[in-house]
This record gives sequence, C-alpha cells and structure tokens, in this order.
Amino acid sequence: MEKKSKEGLTAKKEEDTAKWYEEVCLKSELAEFSQVKGTMIIRPRGYFIWEKIQEYFNKNIVEKTNCENAYFPLFIPESFFKKEAEHAKGFQPEVAWIDPKLTQPGERLAIRPTSETIIYDSYSKWIRSYKDLPLRINQWCNVVRWETEATKLFLRSREFLWQEGHCVYETEKECDKETLQYIELYKKLCEELLALPVLIGKKTEKEKFAGAKYTFTIESFMPDGKALQCGTSHNLGQGFAKAFNIEFLGKDEKKHLPWQNSWGISTRLIGASVMTHSDNKGLILPPKIAKNKIVIVPIIFEKTKSEILKQSKKIKEELKEFAPILDDREEHSPGWKFSEWELKGIPLRIEIGPKDLEKNSVTIVKRNTGEKSQLKIKEIKTKIPKLLDEIQNELFLSAKKFSESNIIEVKNWNEFANGIKNKKMIKMNWCNERKCEDEIKEKTNGATSRCIPLENEKVSGKCPNCGKSAKVKTYFARSY
Amino acid sequence: MEKKSKEGLTAKKEEDTAKWYEEVCLKSELAEFSQVKGTMIIRPRGYFIWEKIQEYFNKNIVEKTNCENAYFPLFIPESFFKKEAEHAKGFQPEVAWIDPKLTQPGERLAIRPTSETIIYDSYSKWIRSYKDLPLRINQWCNVVRWETEATKLFLRSREFLWQEGHCVYETEKECDKETLQYIELYKKLCEELLALPVLIGKKTEKEKFAGAKYTFTIESFMPDGKALQCGTSHNLGQGFAKAFNIEFLGKDEKKHLPWQNSWGISTRLIGASVMTHSDNKGLILPPKIAKNKIVIVPIIFEKTKSEILKQSKKIKEELKEFAPILDDREEHSPGWKFSEWELKGIPLRIEIGPKDLEKNSVTIVKRNTGEKSQLKIKEIKTKIPKLLDEIQNELFLSAKKFSESNIIEVKNWNEFANGIKNKKMIKMNWCNERKCEDEIKEKTNGATSRCIPLENEKVSGKCPNCGKSAKVKTYFARSY
Repeated sequence: MEKKSKEGLTAKKEEDTAKWYEEVCLKSELAEFSQVKGTMIIRPRGYFIWEKIQEYFNKNIVEKTNCENAYFPLFIPESFFKKEAEHAKGFQPEVAWIDPKLTQPGERLAIRPTSETIIYDSYSKWIRSYKDLPLRINQWCNVVRWETEATKLFLRSREFLWQEGHCVYETEKECDKETLQYIELYKKLCEELLALPVLIGKKTEKEKFAGAKYTFTIESFMPDGKALQCGTSHNLGQGFAKAFNIEFLGKDEKKHLPWQNSWGISTRLIGASVMTHSDNKGLILPPKIAKNKIVIVPIIFEKTKSEILKQSKKIKEELKEFAPILDDREEHSPGWKFSEWELKGIPLRIEIGPKDLEKNSVTIVKRNTGEKSQLKIKEIKTKIPKLLDEIQNELFLSAKKFSESNIIEVKNWNEFANGIKNKKMIKMNWCNERKCEDEIKEKTNGATSRCIPLENEKVSGKCPNCGKSAKVKTYFARSY
Repeated sequence: MEKKSKEGLTAKKEEDTAKWYEEVCLKSELAEFSQVKGTMIIRPRGYFIWEKIQEYFNKNIVEKTNCENAYFPLFIPESFFKKEAEHAKGFQPEVAWIDPKLTQPGERLAIRPTSETIIYDSYSKWIRSYKDLPLRINQWCNVVRWETEATKLFLRSREFLWQEGHCVYETEKECDKETLQYIELYKKLCEELLALPVLIGKKTEKEKFAGAKYTFTIESFMPDGKALQCGTSHNLGQGFAKAFNIEFLGKDEKKHLPWQNSWGISTRLIGASVMTHSDNKGLILPPKIAKNKIVIVPIIFEKTKSEILKQSKKIKEELKEFAPILDDREEHSPGWKFSEWELKGIPLRIEIGPKDLEKNSVTIVKRNTGEKSQLKIKEIKTKIPKLLDEIQNELFLSAKKFSESNIIEVKNWNEFANGIKNKKMIKMNWCNERKCEDEIKEKTNGATSRCIPLENEKVSGKCPNCGKSAKVKTYFARSY
C-alpha cells in the first residue's frame, strides 16, 4: 500500500495550536513566510479568500451604505502624524520610515500604518458645506507596522492588507449610529461568509484606538483559548476634525466641526477562519470561501476505467459553478488523494467507483465531519448546493458552540485566574479602571480586557481583582 | 441668467494639452495632487475606473489564461536585486529604500519598484517538476519609483497601482507564445473597455525591460503628439531562472532551467483614456468605465413641476442598471447643470421639459458629440443601451482615426524632423542601431523609438538618420 502523503500535519490542534496552525497555513498552500523578516506571502489559495472578502464587502458594505472606494498615498509626512497628539503617540513605536536621504531635511515620510491623517488632510479641502456630508470613503490597501513580535501567518506581520473606511457626518448622532452600523456589518460578514462567530462590544479606554472617542470591536475565540480582535470601528469624535481643520458651513450658515469615524478589517480574518475550523487532517474552509468546493476522485480499476472517467467528467461539467477538481492522476492511490484534498480543505469529496456506478450513485464525504453518504447521480445538481450550505452552517454552529462553551462567568479572583489558566474567556462584573486592568495583565502574564458587551446587562457586586464596585460587564482573555 | 459654473476649464486641449489634461482630472474629481511630493490621490470617480479595469482583467485575462492572483511583500532585500545584473542596473536610480535604522547592517530593504526578484525567490522553492509548470501568477499592488520628473496625474507619480503577471514555462516556445498572448490581451482590454486604440510592437534593445530578452509594448498616441506606453509584456528568457536558481525536473528526468515572462498595466491607463477622449468642456468617458452613465435633468416650471419630477423618477428607476443621476436641485438652472455634468463626463444626458412631456418623449444629448435627439419615453429601455454602445464605439473610432491620421511614413531626415516638430508619430525604415537611436533622441531633443511593429512588412532603403541599410520598420515619437 502506498504511503500517505508525507505532507500531512505533524502537530496537533489540541497540543500545540500555534505550530499546528502554521502547518495548516503552509501545507494547504495558503501562505508562506518570506525572506524579508516579519513579512509573508499570500499564495493563490489564500488570496482567493481575501478576494471573496473584498467581493462581499464591496457589495454588502460599500454599496449598501453609500460609501465609495478611493486610494490615498502610501507615504505620510511626519508632520501629519503630529497633528493629533494621542494618535501620534499610539502609532509612534511601530511606524516604519523611508530613508531620510530621499526627502528634505525635517520632513520624514512614514509608510502608512493607517491613513486617518493623510485622508483627513484631503477632507479639509473637500468639505465645505453640509451638502458635502455625509462623506463616506473606503480604501483597500497595504499597511505597515514595524512589529517586534514573531510573525504569525495572517495574524501578525509587518505588512498586511486591509480596508479602512473613513466617514464624516454633520451630527454626533449620525456618527454614533453608523459607527455601530459598521461593526454590526463586520459581524455579519464574519458570520455569513467566514462562518466565524464573534462577540461585539466596546473597548476600554486603555484598549481603544489612539485618537478615538471610543472603539467598537468584534472578537473571536480561538481554539487555544485566546481572543482575536477581528475588526474595529472607531468613533473619532471631533478631535481629528479640529486637528486637520475640517469645517463645514451648516444649514444655519455658521461654521461647524463635523464628526468622524473610521473602521477596518484585514487579512487577519483569513487566519481567524482557518484556525477556528481546521482540524488535525488539515485545512477546513467554509464552502463560501473555498475556490474549489468539490473534489471528484474516480476509483479506477482497469475494467471499468473508461466508464468511471466518463461519468466523472460528466459530473465535473454539471457542477462547474463550484469549480470542482477532477483528480484522475493514476500515479496516486485514492487514499493518498483523500489525504491530499483533506489537507487542502476541499469542502466536499465525491468518490465514484464501480459499485457506486452499478447503483447509479456516488459516495459523498463531507470534509468537516467526515460523514459519508450515497447520492443518486441524477440528484447531484439539486442536492450538492444544499450540502454545501449545510457544511457552511454546521461550521458556524460548531464554532459558536465551542466559543460559547468556553466563556465562563466568574465572581472572584480565584475563578478568574483558573479560567485564564484553563484557556477560557472570562465574563465578569468589573470596575472599569485603568489601574486594575494593568494589574490584571501583569498578574496573569497577559490577559487583557477584550470588550464591554453592548447589551444592557445588570451589573452588580465587586470587581474580582481590586474589590471596588463593579461598573460594567467585561470580557477578559489572553489574545493574539 | 445664471453664470456658468466657475469650475469650467480654463486651458484648451489644442493649446496647452498638459494644463488642460490636469484641469480635466482635477475638476472632474478623478484625482488630486497630494501634499507628499510626487504622489497623487485617486478620488472615487477615478478609482471606479480602476475597479472596472480590474474586473475586466480578472475575468478576461486572469481566469481565461489559468492565472491566479496572489500577494508578495512590499519590501525587497537589496541582495535580491543584485542577483540579476541588468535588472539591478536598470532600476537602481529610481529605487526608494526604507530607513536603514530599521534593518540589519548590510541588508537594505527596497520598496518594490516591480516584483520579479521577490517572486522568483519563491518560485525557486515552489517549482520542482515539469508538473508544476506552467505556473502563472498575477499580483495587484502598489509600486514605488522615485521619479525626479514632475508629477503628472495618472501618467507619472512616485507611487502607482498596477498588476504584474509572472509566468514560468517548460519551453521557450510556450513562453514566446504567451508573452505575445498577454500583450494582445492588453490591446483588447484597451480597445474594448477604454475605447483606446493602441499600436502593438517590440521595444528596441535600448528601450526593453531591464533583464528581459525582449519586450512587447502597446503604445497609444496622445492629442499633443506624444506616445504613451500603455502596457508591456517581457520575455525574460532564462536569465532570472539562472540568477534565482529556478530549476525543474523534466519528463526526461533531467534538471532544466525554465523560461519566464512578466507583464503589467497600471493606473496610467486611466490617464490615457481621459486624455484621448476628453474635450474643452471637460471629461469624456467611454460608457463602459463611467459609474453614472446617465444624468437626468428635469426642466422645471411651476405648473408642470410635479408631473415632470414624477416622470423623471420613473425614468431613473427604469434605467437603474446605468446608475443614473437625477439632478433635481432647484438652486441651479438647467444650463448650469448641463455644464456641470459635461465637465464630469456623464456619457448621456436626458432632459425632460413640458414640451417633451406633451409628446411623451425626452431629449437626449450625447456627451461625445453634443448630438441631440428626441426619444419616446416608452422606447427608453430598449434604445438607451444601444445609444451607450454607440457612444463607446464612436469614441474608439474617432480616437483611431485621429491617431492613424497622425502617423506619417518618412523617407529622410528632413521629413522626420518636421514630423516630430509637427507632433506626428513617425513610421520609417530604420537601421535598428543603439548609437543611431541615441543620436535621434539628442537631435530631436527627446524623440525615442516606440516599437517595431510585429507585422512582417517589407523593409527597404536607408536609415533616415545615419544612412545605413534599414533593418526594420520602427515607430518614433516624443513620449510621456
């Protein structure tokens, strides 16, 4: 018997999640480390997922909210950063600069870590009157943050791809409303497209965006007990408007400062989906983001070969909207092929052997559960789409169940510390004080507040860490 | 009578093409200069055109040729550049480097001016056997070239957006064939989507890509008599394969060097289309790349106002696939609105006034010709798409006629020099020698060889400049 593909995974999801995750990304050919420290290569199988995210986003977020795509320069003058003090302070440690020899003395150029400042410089010229508002612009681009931590494929690298939306409003009310709207649309994208359940909430003062009035976040829960920030929407208040001189003539014919928000998601979402769904056989992809949703493996014996191949090709043609792969290579056994395509995350396998053919049917195997079933050939066209939807749905539900079962509510420090040790996400009544938050991080060697849920839950009792009166419900966890 | 929009153009296309072009881009809100020297901002109206190019390209070029999209890092180690000597030499003067303080001594990082080197480093790991070939990968990204010449919106800037395709083949024959295929697909894109006629040909040794065996190009002819290089496809031979150690095990079980090509088009194409089609009233866009293909201007009098507006809305709804703008602002006169939307390049205007309504018709005005006609309201749905196709076609034909009528064949130096002076593109029998090419450039203060046409035309006589025997037909012109 032929040996199984040597390319299988060596690490186990439950034992060494980080190594397992890296192997999944590498061996399913989603991504690869580059020779340039801190950066990664997104291979075609991985980039396809990003294109699906872009497609969904352009249709369901950009178009639906009357936003428009545009493109601003990669380089940002140092002086722009300095205009908003909090923003400058927050990004300063991780900004990459270009060689000072290329520019005039006294004006360094940053490679954008985010584009608020350069975009708002333009807004100050474009906005004159209330008739120019609301202004909603989105940009797809690369950004650079000179991280010192180790590179994690899709999750942490010095360069990544993202979108950043930047809106300007006449009133605070509109701004509040849409800051929330965008984080809710992100949640929908994660859940509908990536089958990724997320918690929605507000960041604490410590964790909010540098320069924001407040930040909404969506957080997902990873198999190793860490939370992953998947997207943020910042209400910027009027701070940037003031710093960049953005003013508009109101209906009252007086000058006013507008209100602004900014919001972003990145290629990190690919990592979140991969880590959530995959298993020890390799990649599992929700069908909506898999390029090839089906692999057809003919079981070839000399006698029935031509009939089997003929039928396989017919099925391939019938299912072409799902970009099926017909793996008719004769140098590999069916078992080898099964492992290969399980590793690479094809959601559905169709096997056709002589026995299937006798019954005018095929064998179907679902990648997510390994569940096998028989399907009449004439039913393929109607049943396969349903099966793919079923897989998409099962992945979401099982991820949701997993994350829900790993959130625990705690009442005291002991429960908190044990929870973190046991890779749980903690929910608790909390004092909402910066000092206490710093202390918790230090005592647990890394647990941070993830978000304050938006639902109006009853808050009672004392803070499990400092003993002061609790003010809010808050989620805590280790994080990526 | 209300004054016409103050925002109209001040320069004339035929008098000061450069200034006129800049005004068209700025005032139609396609693009804008940025505060960062040498860079530009692509505004939503301009970025929409880029998205249309991407959409066409992904469908008709990436998919059709079995290519796949991927993403490689922005940063390229200096040592990668040095591996292919010609390539390094060609790009060295315009490479932007990041601050040396960010990296280890002795390993500077460039901001990619093009990605051959970093992509081929990966290819050397991905390619093992003839089964891995052909490999076809395309990347959409930003690139940086530290130009010293003045910025021209879309045509010349330190950062621009482009796609770069990078293919690897088993045989020279395949490589030759597809290097040609890609330039032909570019020509089709220019002509079908942008209504932009282009010449196709081979670059001379002097003008070919740094590191290539040969370069194919498409060149368009601009209204000021300059040629504009619109896209290139390079046969790289085996030079990069050698430099980057890309080898494959052939069917003969021996190691071989593969053959490679690379090919690219950029946001420059937006500029080419804008400069070709627009006029002294402002932007003219081929309907296929106009976001709003129609503007509806109701001619409002108190008595018929409600009926006119009702009808306008009905027409807007009927034509919604063309993203019509209904300009029902009452603070502006119809004439003001006509100028405004002519400036902004809406391909088709629909006017509805009381007299139109009496006849159950509307007045249609084509942006490209100013031609007016009446159209029965009930025919709108069937006739408008045809009219838009007609405009697209007319723009292409008129541009083609213009460029063809400005190409002259010359026999001697006098004709050559006069042709260049009179803003013509020159076609001639030429010696194809580097020294002569340098001389021509110097004597004419800037005319360069554009390309050697691919058709097998009969070559005869002497070179108009140096008098040596002619070897090829060649186009010469000033260029962007």
